[in-house]
Amino acid sequence: MKPQHQATVLRRLKNARGHLDGVIRMVEDEVYCPEVMKQLSAVQGAVQGANRLMLRNHLETCVAEAMAAGRTAEIVDELMEALRFDPGPPAVGLEAAPDVEGGVPA
Amino acid sequence: MKPQHQATVLRRLKNARGHLDGVIRMVEDEVYCPEVMKQLSAVQGAVQGANRLMLRNHLETCVAEAMAAGRTAEIVDELMEALRFDPGPPAVGLEAAPDVEGGVPA
Amino acid sequence: MKPQHQATVLRRLKNARGHLDGVIRMVEDEVYCPEVMKQLSAVQGAVQGANRLMLRNHLETCVAEAMAAGRTAEIVDELMEALRFDPGPPAVGLEAAPDVEGGVPA
Amino acid sequence: MKPQHQATVLRRLKNARGHLDGVIRMVEDEVYCPEVMKQLSAVQGAVQGANRLMLRNHLETCVAEAMAAGRTAEIVDELMEALRFDPGPPAVGLEAAPDVEGGVPA
Repeated sequence: MKPQHQATVLRRLKNARGHLDGVIRMVEDEVYCPEVMKQLSAVQGAVQGANRLMLRNHLETCVAEAMAAGRTAEIVDELMEALRFDPGPPAVGLEAAPDVEGGVPA
Repeated sequence: MKPQHQATVLRRLKNARGHLDGVIRMVEDEVYCPEVMKQLSAVQGAVQGANRLMLRNHLETCVAEAMAAGRTAEIVDELMEALRFDPGPPAVGLEAAPDVEGGVPA
Repeated sequence: MKPQHQATVLRRLKNARGHLDGVIRMVEDEVYCPEVMKQLSAVQGAVQGANRLMLRNHLETCVAEAMAAGRTAEIVDELMEALRFDPGPPAVGLEAAPDVEGGVPA
Repeated sequence: MKPQHQATVLRRLKNARGHLDGVIRMVEDEVYCPEVMKQLSAVQGAVQGANRLMLRNHLETCVAEAMAAGRTAEIVDELMEALRFDPGPPAVGLEAAPDVEGGVPA
């Protein structure tokens, strides 16, 4: 992996994990459902952001190498298969989710 | 919250957190990008499943009470706002994601 | 249906159809793929907006009536089934899609 | 565009358009909301399928040419921008949507 992408992906995933810890506490504390729902959507958005960066890294490295070596059909099939499970980018407004540590009031 | 929904949501979120731990290890170990991308999509699917159960719980409890008390407009506005951030159900095939502990080969 | 919701849904769906007509012309004219991809995402966003308004209408009418009559479990099961197919709200930025008649340069 | 991809995309988009026509009739006839919601999700799934095929075509043609010519950074930036609006693949179960002409009982 490109070091800068790896570092960003790891930071985002660890932030998403902290956010998920916070949401688990909210469910244990029976916080009002719509608040929990918004936070869970924000966790999904954070994971999706990391997923898109994995895609960029793959395009910039393995896909570029394979295409330069004439293995376009094989690498495109593989990429389309990975994208088959991709739920798409964050829903509208997720960036506005409160940027509290772990995304949830401690 | 209805106890059975709370228990299921907590179990799914803790499973998703374990899955996320596994994916963080994969990124640290520089596992091939498309494999990481599929696992991240599966984490999103698991969080989405929990989010939908929160929605069901909300409908069965607070929304039902509010509608019985004639506060339909207020509770619907609130619910539509929460759904604005909802990225939709798991993408095709996510159920097929390996149901390994934490979703990722240890 | 509530007349105001019905009128808005119909207007949005007819706009989406005009937009789809424009994208079909783009594909016939072999317009550059990324441009077509953005326009198709905008069509999906428009259809999703109409879908969310159908949900609001359902909550404000049939769901409210069923809950007031004590048929909460039945109406919630039905609603969760319909939402199972719901791909979630428009992706980030779709509102910024050019608001050209039908969404595509004539 | 590759002729076979162009033909498939056009067929899918024209089918989605026919499906949308059918859903507009359903809304005009005030068909039960959850039925309309499922059909709208199926239209989104069909448009998404065409969108994914546009992506495949782009990868197999313009992206491959650009990468072979050493313009990887530029073509990846452009592709990630187009995917920013992509709402992800069809939700679970959309393939099961009734394959009635235009996807809706005439």
